[in-house]
Amino acid sequence: MNKQALLHIPDSSLCFATGKNEVTIRLRAAEEDRGIKVFLVYGPKYEYQIRQYEAQMQPEYRDGVFQYFEKKLTLSDVRLAYVFRIEEDGKSYFFSEDGLTDGYSFTESFYNFFQIPYINENDRVKTVDWMRNAVFYQIFVDRFYHGDHEKDTSYINMNWGERPTPKSFAGGDIRGIIEKLDHIKGLGVNAIYLTPVFKSVSNHKYDISDYKQIDPMFGSEKDLKELVEKAHRIGIRVVLDAVFNHCSMYLSQFQDVMKKGRESEYYDWFIIDGDRPDPAQINYECFAACNYMPKLNTAVPAVQDFLIDVGTYWIREADIDGWRLDVSDEVSHDFWRMFRRAVKEEKSDAVIIGESWHDASDYLRGDQFDSIMNYAFTKACLDYFAHDRFDEKQMSDKLNGILMRNMTPVNDMMLNLLDSHDTHRFFTEVDRDKKKLLTALALEAFFPGAMCIYYGTEICLEGGYDPDSRRCFNWDEDFWDFEFMSHMKKILALKEDRAIQYGDTRIYTENGALVVERSIPEEKITLKIKDKDSFSIYKEAKNEEENSVVNTGMHNARYSYGVQ
Amino acid sequence: MNKQALLHIPDSSLCFATGKNEVTIRLRAAEEDRGIKVFLVYGPKYEYQIRQYEAQMQPEYRDGVFQYFEKKLTLSDVRLAYVFRIEEDGKSYFFSEDGLTDGYSFTESFYNFFQIPYINENDRVKTVDWMRNAVFYQIFVDRFYHGDHEKDTSYINMNWGERPTPKSFAGGDIRGIIEKLDHIKGLGVNAIYLTPVFKSVSNHKYDISDYKQIDPMFGSEKDLKELVEKAHRIGIRVVLDAVFNHCSMYLSQFQDVMKKGRESEYYDWFIIDGDRPDPAQINYECFAACNYMPKLNTAVPAVQDFLIDVGTYWIREADIDGWRLDVSDEVSHDFWRMFRRAVKEEKSDAVIIGESWHDASDYLRGDQFDSIMNYAFTKACLDYFAHDRFDEKQMSDKLNGILMRNMTPVNDMMLNLLDSHDTHRFFTEVDRDKKKLLTALALEAFFPGAMCIYYGTEICLEGGYDPDSRRCFNWDEDFWDFEFMSHMKKILALKEDRAIQYGDTRIYTENGALVVERSIPEEKITLKIKDKDSFSIYKEAKNEEENSVVNTGMHNARYSYGVQ
Repeated sequence: MNKQALLHIPDSSLCFATGKNEVTIRLRAAEEDRGIKVFLVYGPKYEYQIRQYEAQMQPEYRDGVFQYFEKKLTLSDVRLAYVFRIEEDGKSYFFSEDGLTDGYSFTESFYNFFQIPYINENDRVKTVDWMRNAVFYQIFVDRFYHGDHEKDTSYINMNWGERPTPKSFAGGDIRGIIEKLDHIKGLGVNAIYLTPVFKSVSNHKYDISDYKQIDPMFGSEKDLKELVEKAHRIGIRVVLDAVFNHCSMYLSQFQDVMKKGRESEYYDWFIIDGDRPDPAQINYECFAACNYMPKLNTAVPAVQDFLIDVGTYWIREADIDGWRLDVSDEVSHDFWRMFRRAVKEEKSDAVIIGESWHDASDYLRGDQFDSIMNYAFTKACLDYFAHDRFDEKQMSDKLNGILMRNMTPVNDMMLNLLDSHDTHRFFTEVDRDKKKLLTALALEAFFPGAMCIYYGTEICLEGGYDPDSRRCFNWDEDFWDFEFMSHMKKILALKEDRAIQYGDTRIYTENGALVVERSIPEEKITLKIKDKDSFSIYKEAKNEEENSVVNTGMHNARYSYGVQ
Repeated sequence: MNKQALLHIPDSSLCFATGKNEVTIRLRAAEEDRGIKVFLVYGPKYEYQIRQYEAQMQPEYRDGVFQYFEKKLTLSDVRLAYVFRIEEDGKSYFFSEDGLTDGYSFTESFYNFFQIPYINENDRVKTVDWMRNAVFYQIFVDRFYHGDHEKDTSYINMNWGERPTPKSFAGGDIRGIIEKLDHIKGLGVNAIYLTPVFKSVSNHKYDISDYKQIDPMFGSEKDLKELVEKAHRIGIRVVLDAVFNHCSMYLSQFQDVMKKGRESEYYDWFIIDGDRPDPAQINYECFAACNYMPKLNTAVPAVQDFLIDVGTYWIREADIDGWRLDVSDEVSHDFWRMFRRAVKEEKSDAVIIGESWHDASDYLRGDQFDSIMNYAFTKACLDYFAHDRFDEKQMSDKLNGILMRNMTPVNDMMLNLLDSHDTHRFFTEVDRDKKKLLTALALEAFFPGAMCIYYGTEICLEGGYDPDSRRCFNWDEDFWDFEFMSHMKKILALKEDRAIQYGDTRIYTENGALVVERSIPEEKITLKIKDKDSFSIYKEAKNEEENSVVNTGMHNARYSYGVQ
């Protein structure tokens, strides 16, 4: 046995509560140690010295390097002590806080058992339930649809459909989204995520100069309210983009510091090396190296209050359903905890989605974000579908590895995506292979959490890196592929399936196919992907006749090529 | 190379800030992989695709299973991206968020590098500096000294010096501590930790019925204020015991619920299964299985306010210097975060010490506790000094393992202890071997963090498990071993050494001795322990003549047996 492969961390993705008295416990071991048997030796903490129970754990996930043994328990006493017993070649070992040992002294176990000290309700990660079947549609507002023809359009500097530059303004606005709600709804979408809509001189508006005003290019507060109201009426939630890491240099507070230097009451809102910010020198912290985006100092209470007020204002005023947090990993944990508390008090099922491209388990412990943009999933899809770096086994390994990063209640809220305004278009990455795009979407639908479809995916919009990934939507239906769109709708509709929303997830390979199973006690739904461009879906009801197949037309979306 | 042994977790004991722009980064690998070379490949995050720097990491810690490679960096840009390059047999591998790979694409690294996203000042763990050289003296108040002869003594039910039972009251009080401050100071102590002093029917007072009143058995608020004032005057800090997991069933709020059931405004302060708490049925959550200690529901804002008010009240009123938190791991993280904020606002260098017998790294991230009672250190000392389960190599391994649990700024605040009111007396555990006790104290002095000496250690007080570990202090000096006490004072004085307060820690074995080195740029001080009952201390100044030995009489506390 590879003893260095063994890993267990309480209060992590290896041990977490899934309910008031339900827990999932995992032990990581080397994947090649196929011969070992693992048992959870557990019991109420205050009786553990005298009494323990034992349950075998099953290797449910394999990532190519490790396997993860899992056991779910329902507790009568929510203070649990446990160690692991590992059998190999007829010999028993114990794994505790003291590592792997030949024996284990239960009488002294209070020094080194693993434990769930107590399941406190205010610590437990709770799933925002609507994220389980959310199908987001991400809109880069300036490029979606120009609906408001009353507004001052003098800022528009390109014809709709031209290739955008970093400085292009095409005219898309909130009115445009309102007018196209039926199109969006028709796809099977039930949530919209808008890139920033607040006052800003740029087309992307990630440099905000007034957090309480909708940019006139995009409309008014009235328009936003109307959008949310009309969207809600047809079952679509609306999430906005919170750019709190930094602001625009035109934010009045920064302008005040530019004028008054240290004399400004806002001097400590920013992190300035010197008496006065100097954009030429960039003597202040900013986003990346962008002098026009000064970083906000969220260690300062006045900044905390200012941003938290913004966060609750738009929920209160426009009834939005959550926030996507820009550059969220550079903002302090301390601030996000306060932000979460305020947002959830305002609207308990508002979702908080961080932009973190990396393992963000530190932010996903129930005290900060609910979810992140799952770019690790994006990267895996690129490596498998687009770049041929992964075969089915490697893809299965990678997806299992991604699942093992976070607790299940967090995975159930992940914002899975193939592309965004910050990446190349996935369709372009797969060399405009519609079959691959649909297959990737099917995988996205099966993966735990929400889907996020970048606007234009339904019409196979192309695009390379920013600004090319932000092309104008083509509303000329002559260019649309309705067959593709119809398949895509069927795929998005998969999120209505209860097993996909609530099921356990098992990912593996079988006869060269990549298989994703989602199962609840009553039902199992299975996706089989072959050759990266074809897939079959099987649905089995678990009724009296065990595992009888109930392939419906909708779910049996079998393509004629590849899969037998 | 054992690739499953490799572990890196950002924002953990494997990567943390030690200053505004100083970081320590570690990679864990298998100890047996002695042949590998590890390099940190790092750079400013927003330039990382185009430019990286490389620095070799050194294997500084070994725990018998793993070795830990370490590199300290001073950053100009506090947004750091990094991966590890590992050389083995002339071949290079990379270790990133995607695990171990043969190559690494820096152009796509934004998907999978490790990162320090930004060092936010309000997240960074800051060491409460006085903990580096704190020598605590833990007092179980009822058994230390009876100083107040004006008080009603009718509750006293044992003669001073008799063997205590769980229900014994001996008469010790705060006045007694005030009268014995000179004795305490004389030992070299600079902090006192008192077990609970608030209103309670028990001798230990871990079941508190009034958090705002000093128990009359122990004295008055005036006495506490006098104690703190007089202690402060001679450089001694005072830390009290916060019992916030549970209270006494005689707390007025619980009594109100006992009377009114669900009608009580305090019903939700407790976690009750039914209309009314029933101590016979224990239909409410309590500490362990003690029906007289109902658990407080810290998810309820009124409870949070109540306890936080207690936490700040005694700092404000009596100027205490911190809190030891009873059963801290069963109370919610969420509550402790609020508690910390309030306490630190009241007194920024007040210390917060959790009672956690287990790996508590989850509570020690800068947002909850500063420190815990280091019972893992206690257990290691028992296994090495008392139970002969460890030889020097195993002890070195264990101590390194304990160090690797937490970030250095946390280790520098650990409350190291050999025993407490909740364990057997260490002197009893080592079969009354004074040489072993002194050697263990020397090790405790060298270990990063504070020392905590249980009252009576200086007179070699004996005792088994509770209640025997809570015997009366013997004030008859005829029974004192002044030679022992004199050695002990020299050991406690070691905490005045700057290298012991601020130094890097290296623990290893050499010629059968257990060696602990603490070093700062100017100085190194070394402890060598042999045969568990003898030790030598060497101090070396690093001046022009490199490593010239400056053994002072005090530090060269060499015993005549064992060490050459």
